[in-house]
Amino acid sequence: MELDDSILNKFGFIARGPKDAINIDPLQTGGKLTEDARKALLEWGDGYSVCDFCGGVLDLIKKPPIEELIHNALPAFLDTDAVRITHGARESKFAVMHSMGQEGDYVVLDELAHYSSFVAAQRARLNVKTVPHSGSPEYKTDVEAYATAIEEVISETGKAPALAQVTYPDGSYGNLADVKRISDICHSYDVPLMLNGAYSVGRMPIHAKKMGVDFVVGSGHKSMASSGPIGVLGVKEDYADIVFRKSPTHKVKELELLGCTARGATVMTMIASFPEVVRRTQNWDNEVADARWFSAKLEDMGIIQMGDKPHNHDLMFFEAPVFYEISQTAKKGRYFLYKELKKRNIHGIKSGLTKYFKLSTFQVGRENLSYIADSFQEIIDTYQK
Amino acid sequence: MELDDSILNKFGFIARGPKDAINIDPLQTGGKLTEDARKALLEWGDGYSVCDFCGGVLDLIKKPPIEELIHNALPAFLDTDAVRITHGARESKFAVMHSMGQEGDYVVLDELAHYSSFVAAQRARLNVKTVPHSGSPEYKTDVEAYATAIEEVISETGKAPALAQVTYPDGSYGNLADVKRISDICHSYDVPLMLNGAYSVGRMPIHAKKMGVDFVVGSGHKSMASSGPIGVLGVKEDYADIVFRKSPTHKVKELELLGCTARGATVMTMIASFPEVVRRTQNWDNEVADARWFSAKLEDMGIIQMGDKPHNHDLMFFEAPVFYEISQTAKKGRYFLYKELKKRNIHGIKSGLTKYFKLSTFQVGRENLSYIADSFQEIIDTYQK
Repeated sequence: MELDDSILNKFGFIARGPKDAINIDPLQTGGKLTEDARKALLEWGDGYSVCDFCGGVLDLIKKPPIEELIHNALPAFLDTDAVRITHGARESKFAVMHSMGQEGDYVVLDELAHYSSFVAAQRARLNVKTVPHSGSPEYKTDVEAYATAIEEVISETGKAPALAQVTYPDGSYGNLADVKRISDICHSYDVPLMLNGAYSVGRMPIHAKKMGVDFVVGSGHKSMASSGPIGVLGVKEDYADIVFRKSPTHKVKELELLGCTARGATVMTMIASFPEVVRRTQNWDNEVADARWFSAKLEDMGIIQMGDKPHNHDLMFFEAPVFYEISQTAKKGRYFLYKELKKRNIHGIKSGLTKYFKLSTFQVGRENLSYIADSFQEIIDTYQK
Repeated sequence: MELDDSILNKFGFIARGPKDAINIDPLQTGGKLTEDARKALLEWGDGYSVCDFCGGVLDLIKKPPIEELIHNALPAFLDTDAVRITHGARESKFAVMHSMGQEGDYVVLDELAHYSSFVAAQRARLNVKTVPHSGSPEYKTDVEAYATAIEEVISETGKAPALAQVTYPDGSYGNLADVKRISDICHSYDVPLMLNGAYSVGRMPIHAKKMGVDFVVGSGHKSMASSGPIGVLGVKEDYADIVFRKSPTHKVKELELLGCTARGATVMTMIASFPEVVRRTQNWDNEVADARWFSAKLEDMGIIQMGDKPHNHDLMFFEAPVFYEISQTAKKGRYFLYKELKKRNIHGIKSGLTKYFKLSTFQVGRENLSYIADSFQEIIDTYQK
């Protein structure tokens, strides 16, 4: 194929439709850039921009304050010992699994773990044992079953799992499990515990040590108002020399990071947003209050919130028989809801979903949430006439 | 440590000093964003922005034209069968090494390979056998020694190496090895060959099949005018099912990509710059002419260009005894050169270097190159008075 203008003209600058809508997509509410991050994007957008200031180790760059972020601020923010930045939560999880496990070892995952946790384990050539949840409507992870899972691995293989993981919250129902209890169970078997905080780090306070977790994983583009891909990885000192082991030939380069990770615009947007990200986690109680208030509004319309109740996180899953019923006869079928919301500048419920959907109220604000709830009611009223 | 304002005020927006200088840093000349890419950055900068349009597989997104880029345009551009985007060249190399090799296998690298090639092999738990070069002043990779290296591995382990790699060009001297000959040698032993084109893909025409390479690796932030981290990985169809193997449990997710890679601003800046990147590779002869012209100018001043001569790439390494001599008595010692250049708005020779340094003439243009050469002469004249 010749790359002539008829092909090349398909590329270039492309506008992004929904960028100014009221956004309730759980993937996006925590990743929206701050004003400072938008400025940083343009300032540092060129490839390798931060490398001007690098003596060979990204996390030791003093100006801009990358070392300060990675070695002082983030360990304090996460309440952990050693931190590095990675290309994202999944890359953080893979780095831990790949360094803590040997081919054929087991890792214990909650059944509600994100697909990328399973995929990371598979890429690391580890086996997975899952911990079940209670099913509908609460989908509560069976915390005590971490013991069962670990014992099954020991009895099948003669060896404890290399690692256990808990997803906090899970990405479907926004449930927050009792991590301290899981940690006590895992540690009684000498199994280290990783917390996948892709939906918590940067939204709510996370104290790794207080919770008893050995590894904590966060996502810059999901929850830290950063332009991705970027993630964070916090490690308890006991394991830092394993996960951050260095090359035998290139003494300052860390193997699991392939020597360097999120240079350029990604780390500089994380730095730009960091003050606001820290402050917003201190406002978490109000975010939970907003989520509960919105959930109650929807429940009044016959839309049922699944998962923890009362809910403790902005990510919520709903069952909406009323919308499903409408979709059976509506002109646009199951796309009516997406289109009605789009008309009202509301974005984030996946096109085609009516009976079940998830959304996030994070930083949407009471006024917009009120508008969204009123819109739901208006749509119901219009179609039920 | 409390994250109070005295800490948080260190972060936020931070200005980037050298952003408007004439840049000759080899890491940066090919990564400078195009105007379209700068617009795309802001448009798509929010975390997960392209995910609105995703049905579960990043490279199958139709609008924006990510599928068109990855499945049509990039395979044509690289002359290869299957392409994916990754977080960078090193991540591409690791994906290939990790999927092609089993723990303990060997990979053959040219001695001039970038450190990240060694680190990727080490992370994949592979052993490395190196192919030597001719040393100063040419540093030519001994192409025929690929056979020796492969035979050594076979005689030591009873098994051929899992993979060989050639760095094209190497990142120190900008030398372009005879890849076709290396490929013939490797293939005669059934060893697949990977081309690390971090400094070539996006700067000069690269035809993987014509050169006989099985894997081709490129860097978005180094040479494709993209905001990083982002890279490309091209694979011959024979190996696509190995490198891009899917999860047994999550059927559409590719393990080596952990299911998804460069979503958001990174891929959208690559798309934005792609037309210009394709066109500039067609202008490669002029770039080489500029490099040679600049090299000759410096040689006239007694500054010696190492590596291939005449040179075939914009990345060049110089030995400058004249600057070294000046540094012995100059007031600012070995920092005089950096400071003199900075005064003249020229950026990219590392602070503190005088005797040996590398630079890149890519897209700097004859006028700026002339200004830089004149500045070198002026600095020499000033200090030699």
